[in-house]
Amino acid sequence: MKALRIGMIGSGLMGKAHSIAYAAAPVFCDLPLSFQRAVVADVDATLASRAAETLGFDESVVGWQSVVERNDVDVIDIVAPNDVHEAIACAALRAGKHVFCEKPLATNVAAAERMAAAARKAGTVNMVGFNHRRAPAIVYARDLLGSGRLGNPLNITVRYFQDWALSPDVPFGWRFDRSRAGTGALGDIGSHAIECAEYLLGPIVRVCAELRTFIPFRPSENGSKVMVPVTDDDATIVLAEFESGVIGTIEAGRAASGRKNQLAFELYGSEGAVMFDWERRDELQVSLRDDPIALSGFRAILMGPEHPYGFWPIPAMGYGYIETFVAEFEELANAICEERQAEPNFEAGLRVQRVLEAVETSARERKWHDVSAP
Amino acid sequence: MKALRIGMIGSGLMGKAHSIAYAAAPVFCDLPLSFQRAVVADVDATLASRAAETLGFDESVVGWQSVVERNDVDVIDIVAPNDVHEAIACAALRAGKHVFCEKPLATNVAAAERMAAAARKAGTVNMVGFNHRRAPAIVYARDLLGSGRLGNPLNITVRYFQDWALSPDVPFGWRFDRSRAGTGALGDIGSHAIECAEYLLGPIVRVCAELRTFIPFRPSENGSKVMVPVTDDDATIVLAEFESGVIGTIEAGRAASGRKNQLAFELYGSEGAVMFDWERRDELQVSLRDDPIALSGFRAILMGPEHPYGFWPIPAMGYGYIETFVAEFEELANAICEERQAEPNFEAGLRVQRVLEAVETSARERKWHDVSAP
Amino acid sequence: MKALRIGMIGSGLMGKAHSIAYAAAPVFCDLPLSFQRAVVADVDATLASRAAETLGFDESVVGWQSVVERNDVDVIDIVAPNDVHEAIACAALRAGKHVFCEKPLATNVAAAERMAAAARKAGTVNMVGFNHRRAPAIVYARDLLGSGRLGNPLNITVRYFQDWALSPDVPFGWRFDRSRAGTGALGDIGSHAIECAEYLLGPIVRVCAELRTFIPFRPSENGSKVMVPVTDDDATIVLAEFESGVIGTIEAGRAASGRKNQLAFELYGSEGAVMFDWERRDELQVSLRDDPIALSGFRAILMGPEHPYGFWPIPAMGYGYIETFVAEFEELANAICEERQAEPNFEAGLRVQRVLEAVETSARERKWHDVSAP
Amino acid sequence: MKALRIGMIGSGLMGKAHSIAYAAAPVFCDLPLSFQRAVVADVDATLASRAAETLGFDESVVGWQSVVERNDVDVIDIVAPNDVHEAIACAALRAGKHVFCEKPLATNVAAAERMAAAARKAGTVNMVGFNHRRAPAIVYARDLLGSGRLGNPLNITVRYFQDWALSPDVPFGWRFDRSRAGTGALGDIGSHAIECAEYLLGPIVRVCAELRTFIPFRPSENGSKVMVPVTDDDATIVLAEFESGVIGTIEAGRAASGRKNQLAFELYGSEGAVMFDWERRDELQVSLRDDPIALSGFRAILMGPEHPYGFWPIPAMGYGYIETFVAEFEELANAICEERQAEPNFEAGLRVQRVLEAVETSARERKWHDVSAP
Repeated sequence: MKALRIGMIGSGLMGKAHSIAYAAAPVFCDLPLSFQRAVVADVDATLASRAAETLGFDESVVGWQSVVERNDVDVIDIVAPNDVHEAIACAALRAGKHVFCEKPLATNVAAAERMAAAARKAGTVNMVGFNHRRAPAIVYARDLLGSGRLGNPLNITVRYFQDWALSPDVPFGWRFDRSRAGTGALGDIGSHAIECAEYLLGPIVRVCAELRTFIPFRPSENGSKVMVPVTDDDATIVLAEFESGVIGTIEAGRAASGRKNQLAFELYGSEGAVMFDWERRDELQVSLRDDPIALSGFRAILMGPEHPYGFWPIPAMGYGYIETFVAEFEELANAICEERQAEPNFEAGLRVQRVLEAVETSARERKWHDVSAP
Repeated sequence: MKALRIGMIGSGLMGKAHSIAYAAAPVFCDLPLSFQRAVVADVDATLASRAAETLGFDESVVGWQSVVERNDVDVIDIVAPNDVHEAIACAALRAGKHVFCEKPLATNVAAAERMAAAARKAGTVNMVGFNHRRAPAIVYARDLLGSGRLGNPLNITVRYFQDWALSPDVPFGWRFDRSRAGTGALGDIGSHAIECAEYLLGPIVRVCAELRTFIPFRPSENGSKVMVPVTDDDATIVLAEFESGVIGTIEAGRAASGRKNQLAFELYGSEGAVMFDWERRDELQVSLRDDPIALSGFRAILMGPEHPYGFWPIPAMGYGYIETFVAEFEELANAICEERQAEPNFEAGLRVQRVLEAVETSARERKWHDVSAP
Repeated sequence: MKALRIGMIGSGLMGKAHSIAYAAAPVFCDLPLSFQRAVVADVDATLASRAAETLGFDESVVGWQSVVERNDVDVIDIVAPNDVHEAIACAALRAGKHVFCEKPLATNVAAAERMAAAARKAGTVNMVGFNHRRAPAIVYARDLLGSGRLGNPLNITVRYFQDWALSPDVPFGWRFDRSRAGTGALGDIGSHAIECAEYLLGPIVRVCAELRTFIPFRPSENGSKVMVPVTDDDATIVLAEFESGVIGTIEAGRAASGRKNQLAFELYGSEGAVMFDWERRDELQVSLRDDPIALSGFRAILMGPEHPYGFWPIPAMGYGYIETFVAEFEELANAICEERQAEPNFEAGLRVQRVLEAVETSARERKWHDVSAP
Repeated sequence: MKALRIGMIGSGLMGKAHSIAYAAAPVFCDLPLSFQRAVVADVDATLASRAAETLGFDESVVGWQSVVERNDVDVIDIVAPNDVHEAIACAALRAGKHVFCEKPLATNVAAAERMAAAARKAGTVNMVGFNHRRAPAIVYARDLLGSGRLGNPLNITVRYFQDWALSPDVPFGWRFDRSRAGTGALGDIGSHAIECAEYLLGPIVRVCAELRTFIPFRPSENGSKVMVPVTDDDATIVLAEFESGVIGTIEAGRAASGRKNQLAFELYGSEGAVMFDWERRDELQVSLRDDPIALSGFRAILMGPEHPYGFWPIPAMGYGYIETFVAEFEELANAICEERQAEPNFEAGLRVQRVLEAVETSARERKWHDVSAP
């Protein structure tokens, strides 16, 4: 079997997740291709060689520049910090590589536009790592909508809530720094919520939003008395209007007590509704209007072989985080084999970036703001 | 024991609920007073005499005018249509009666202002029937907040979702008619959500809202082919800012598939969070930041004798709809005995009316709108 | 409207619940009769007169003997301790009264047999207060089963778990004393579970059980150092076989940490399953085998006007503890008017008593034991 | 890094799961060893070579005999049918191999005893594939118990319910044939429930059980009119007593409508309780007796980095089925490196087999039966 040779830039948490998925995907999905973890790059030799060892790469190098030009690499996988996505991706695309870039695509719309333009020009396969939408229950929700089973969509709420930043003792870091992170909860996890909303319902065209920073200063490091100002948002609330006229709310928060990893939505249509929570991700709750009234109510449907990504023969056997990446790389491999574009690609990344920007503008100006057109 | 003599105007669903509660309250709450169901008025003799019989009133009359002036009546209880609230309440207040008025107080701010002014002038006890806030779990949520156990409030979501209007076959009626109902889902159930939000967090000062009518025409009556335009909202979505700076979303919908009677909120604070759903009303979910991290998570606390309105010795013995009215009338009786104002009174009704109006204006003008100051 | 004149013996918690329900029932249910709280008896004059005042009775007396013979009393309502049920009930039946007796009917099978025989002989209406089965969701579960919607019943689990006795500091009292209480968790709450199981599935014919006392000694009173032995069960586990061949487990526990008032069951049939928990009593979870497989799962059905005891027009409006008594008294009033026997009557009380005895014997002898035949 | 060379016998569903885990484990767990998928054996050449290709093995062979004696194989992984476990395992142990055997260890106690004896004699590492206990929430439940946080265990319920066999149209197959499967739901999934119970609470010493076959005949194949008798159980209910005196119920069912993969337990102790359901496996519900009473209730604790197998930095990131195997192979690799015995090993497999046998005997004789001593 032919192997796609991967050059990975970065080796943090996402590097680990991707490496596991590269190993697991061929058996999971019976792929037409396998993945060879060819070379991993990081900012210094220690990090890089350690990464090669623990993540199972054949080789390591310092710095990404050499990797994107190597002939023995087919795919550049970018798991480096957000502010270097553009440089790496554009170089890789220019070099004719397929590119997989972790989300968010960039730290601003202009950079995302340049990346999308480079991707269009390159003609290779490009993808952006919105992995959560690969949950079978989310795909199934979309299938139900697409098949008309839910009727016309009417309204939606999507949220992504965590609470890791609730304690004022959590020290300052790049995620609290607007200059490095772009936005706070909005870009970090809100981008998943926005992408999920657009995946289900199509483009968002107008937003009215509020951003809040609940903890304005944080210790410079663990236990320090030196306090540093937080310059991005702890929470985002968005009223959104979709191209279809559907309205909804999108919320993101990193200081929502009790919420650990709650990417959740409720989507109401004229014939039914669906409800999802990542924390119970094997389950899609579905209400159908045509149920006899005395037997109507939300059904807790456990994802199984009849549903998307039905890898296992028994429902609720246990879809996990890794499977989201496995499913991404299945799409990547298939797109490369079939010489077609992958989903979601840089265009989706750019669209999300435009929504993020509109949210920020709306919150700053305290009024409705149109999402900029492509 | 002295009995408060009740003159009730109207005899529909709320009339039934009130009548049950008048009978039950003295035993439930060990009240200083009992309630004598003295006289019930309705628009014709048949309705009125039937009401007296089934609701346990001593007497019935046609029309409300005579009731408000009777010397043998202490309290006027208004369960008549919204558009006659003002006339009845003001006449009763002028006649020196205590007045209990079902929500919403009025159909517009001007009427509500006149009613509140009349109430202030009368000096008798006045109340407005926001009964849901009497759920022990809601009161307990507020107690937790008030005691500082949740820290500073940060953000909130409140919603009231039902689905009785989801079917396009549901015929036209006054609830779909802006001229009679004022607003649709917004005023009918959204008013409960707004009152609940203000009960927990104080005044809302700014809103940005959208209203939607999903089903623009309905049959004039069951099975009819004659279609009548719906002139008020099926759904309302509000971004709200409270006086304290807290932000949140408030939503109401009467066409939310699968939702039957979901008055629900989530309130996040700097030290914890609470979560409530009327459909499981014996329960308050509470998260506390100071829990050891490996043991932290939302707790499902069942309301019992340690909590507000702890009527029964065992938690989850079963608080029902009737208890909300019993608790209202306990407050009414106590306020009358103690010669103090009751809560929530016409001022709260007026405040909700102002928010409703601001929501409508915001949706019409598609921008943030200030809630008018008192 | 004719009033049934009630003579109530006892005035504790059940006395309060009954009194509220007597007041509320006529309006709730549009009864053919109302209830006059005529006379309440208790063991001394202070308790009795206080009861008359707070519970709304016209009159009070000391001792029950005079009440059962009064001509101006139609129904004797027994809310006195279990060990006097027999004497009161038999006297009242001999005097030609209708009798409502709180559960458990008696403290042993022999007494229950004598009571049932007296009831048969009297020919008046008799009832035993298994109120929980009046939850709309339980009645609906039985309706679904009866209509064949669940197919043939296959197996069941029923439980009643509380945790009020979990702390070893809870002082000794009659509930921990086998000589006064008969059994512990088994009779107190297990009797509800057994009655619920038989209500759904018919007679239990064989049991194999274990009883456990987790806390063998308790302080004689709050804070006391004097320790008294507990002589009945903290927990009961029963393997049960029904006449139909269905098998199941029945469990009761008063020391089940975190459980407050969990009367719950799961009933599996060849065509579907139902699941109920009193703590969320507006809801019946239903699974149906003929659902399309990709849309199959437990539905959370909220009880409403389409379901049994649909008092209110909106599902989940809020069925509470009081409604169980209201519904009992509706049955009582209807049975009296229609001159028929009520359900559940002393025969059901006797049947439960026989199961309780079989459970005890099985646990003592550590083997399967047949429930004694009538 | 040294690689353990795996020889896998069989290539069905478990073969796939194992293969994925062999690939993923080194990156997941930062192992001291990696796994080389050296050779896979199946019953014919087509199956075997297809297996090598899709499961990522270097080589394939027909028949297991040659594999167990190869010098270039370190571990024999048995994913073949239950009735050949003994022959393969004993041969492999005799050949000095480490052996991983899928559950159940054998089809009867005698075979399991021979396997355990062979394992003791061999002195190599042996494991049995009770993977579900690797769920972080189950390990954490056991940790809480072990640390005394739950006090003394009092009672437990464990169940494993599925509904794949509910339809009478599901055709006959080996799982319905006592001669091939040993037992039905009992051995297939009940064995997981029993192992889980013993993992938490130690050895079960006595059982009283009932077995039921709900659907006595099934079509010989899909759509066939030829009906074949089912000779093993669709459901098992067990009353169990543990060595510690704790009592509980253990249930297994393959025809429990609405249940897809519900391995669930509730464990009550003198200081707290825990509750788990595989279908929501990221979550452990915990009740603690020392919580202030007004704040007490089950907490939904989401497993994260503070908990066992905290692979990811965020709770509820998503533990899946594959992780159970990854965690098994981590234990296998560590045991081999550390030259110690692995857990759970053939002794645990034997113990479960003894309980299964006692359950069968108890059900046949309809009385309590002691689990045979080692």
